[in-house]
Amino acid sequence: MVLADVTLRDGSHTVNHSFTTEQVRRVVAGLDRAGVPIVEVCHGDGLGGSSYQYGFSAVPELELIEAAAQTARRAKISVLLLPGIGVRDDLRQAAALGATVARIATHVTEADIAEQHIGLAKELGMTAVGFLMMAHTGSPEVVARQGRIMERAGADVVYVVDSAGAMTMEDVHARVSALREALACDVGFHAHNNLGLGVGNTITAARAGATWLDGSMCGFGAGAGNAQTEALVAVLQKLGYECGVDLLPLLDAADAVVRPLLPRPQVLDSKSLILGFAGVYSSFLLHAERAAERFDVDPREVLVEAGRLKSVGGQEDILVEIALGLSTRGAGQAEAVTR
Amino acid sequence: MVLADVTLRDGSHTVNHSFTTEQVRRVVAGLDRAGVPIVEVCHGDGLGGSSYQYGFSAVPELELIEAAAQTARRAKISVLLLPGIGVRDDLRQAAALGATVARIATHVTEADIAEQHIGLAKELGMTAVGFLMMAHTGSPEVVARQGRIMERAGADVVYVVDSAGAMTMEDVHARVSALREALACDVGFHAHNNLGLGVGNTITAARAGATWLDGSMCGFGAGAGNAQTEALVAVLQKLGYECGVDLLPLLDAADAVVRPLLPRPQVLDSKSLILGFAGVYSSFLLHAERAAERFDVDPREVLVEAGRLKSVGGQEDILVEIALGLSTRGAGQAEAVTR
Repeated sequence: MVLADVTLRDGSHTVNHSFTTEQVRRVVAGLDRAGVPIVEVCHGDGLGGSSYQYGFSAVPELELIEAAAQTARRAKISVLLLPGIGVRDDLRQAAALGATVARIATHVTEADIAEQHIGLAKELGMTAVGFLMMAHTGSPEVVARQGRIMERAGADVVYVVDSAGAMTMEDVHARVSALREALACDVGFHAHNNLGLGVGNTITAARAGATWLDGSMCGFGAGAGNAQTEALVAVLQKLGYECGVDLLPLLDAADAVVRPLLPRPQVLDSKSLILGFAGVYSSFLLHAERAAERFDVDPREVLVEAGRLKSVGGQEDILVEIALGLSTRGAGQAEAVTR
Repeated sequence: MVLADVTLRDGSHTVNHSFTTEQVRRVVAGLDRAGVPIVEVCHGDGLGGSSYQYGFSAVPELELIEAAAQTARRAKISVLLLPGIGVRDDLRQAAALGATVARIATHVTEADIAEQHIGLAKELGMTAVGFLMMAHTGSPEVVARQGRIMERAGADVVYVVDSAGAMTMEDVHARVSALREALACDVGFHAHNNLGLGVGNTITAARAGATWLDGSMCGFGAGAGNAQTEALVAVLQKLGYECGVDLLPLLDAADAVVRPLLPRPQVLDSKSLILGFAGVYSSFLLHAERAAERFDVDPREVLVEAGRLKSVGGQEDILVEIALGLSTRGAGQAEAVTR
């Protein structure tokens, strides 16, 4: 079982991309000491994410990656890249500074836009990982088909990514099994905890054949956070899976290094829960609240309707239409919108 | 699916049994409005728990129970009773004040001490529920055998109770299935979240045939808390289970009424996690820390060893022996203790 900790990447969202070099060194050292094999470091939205749109990083991520690579004795440093946000040159620079794992992420139906970046990662001698995001919106067949595109491009691992924390354990089992059956390469799973299933879903993925599992320390991560790394290691150990991580040093790192970095405790609040229930990106929340206020409807119903329509990032405009549809005035239009 | 919310009972631990009548009224009203069918109200250690040993309640629990029963329009009010802490007269008084569900709890191997209280609950016209605590320490066969004792005594429901939050999903499935097969009455499951599996385990229990499920709002409860009621309802709804609870009013109650009562956010910290990993009562923690300090060993290793020995409440003395055994000086004795 290969454990990948994303505290320093998904957790970047939680701190508005304010990680310092010293913080990165301390977290990497703690994870490395406990034996975590893969440590991901970069802007929450991947290489090149530092921008007006996604939020600027306090410290250029390449500096953070270099510090991480210098600190790790055993752990491999991983970076995330979303084609469109990051470009190939970002990957070359990260590799030059010591990153040896490249995770290339696309929407679950768009694997083909990852082909050249996966190819480049292999050229650079990196472990190449394909990341199928918002995988709950694709059927198991879609996931398998898209995973094959990534494997053909050279991926060593393909992940089912539950970006919105929207999957039930059955959803996870079906998608991971479908990938496991369709591919010769390794299969991974990345959870979010919006339905309280972060750990349960990740263990379900392991049972279905995933051998790369993501977690984050103290659950630190966007929205409701990820599967809590310490809990994941404890359960894997109880179940007899070998993941090479020592639980007690890991808990030491959680207590002494990571928890003090959290700007607020990682709880499952009602906003995160409704995003997971609806199955939409967290970026929809603010837009839904604005649209709902304008038409005097419940923003949560707007989100649930957007999820039913399988809206994806960039389609935030639809929220206004939905709110209009839900409003009493627009009762007639509501059906038109939601049909 | 019958949902029982234990915020006002298991959550009582979190606030040192300081719930006021007004707080109880507001929480009951919120849960009732959302359609939660069973609301448990009493001292964290059950009727009669208010004492020097378990902590005194700020308001006598019978007053809280009466206020709850007066407030609820649809919900039934439940009480917990641990024979030995509570007595039959406590149950009579609670019933007279409007409690209509009695949950009688014993260690997983001691169901026979619940017989007379279950019988009394039925005489009083209450729904009688048997609660098999620390069920991870009993095999599925033991759980089934003890469950039969409770059913013969008159129980309408028998619960698998994961008191220490120590069970994996396989553990839950095996025990709930064993009960389901052995009994004609309903089967329930009560989770703690020490391994991050509160929701995952509860859904697993439902899949294995449990039809009574416990949760607590915002996860509010002893140690790492319980399965978060709101998340449970969201997942049950996604899976198509009918539980009669409306998600949005439930989230309103979580945000407006329950979260403000929490003295600290309900997170999964390292202490709770190691208690769940070890599978011991949270009351062991302080004793393990004292013993570990005395012999200069890691208290977490003391707890894990205590779990391996299947220590139960009342056996805290063994922690000193274990700590001695783990210390360098006592290296020879260690094996004797743990064998």
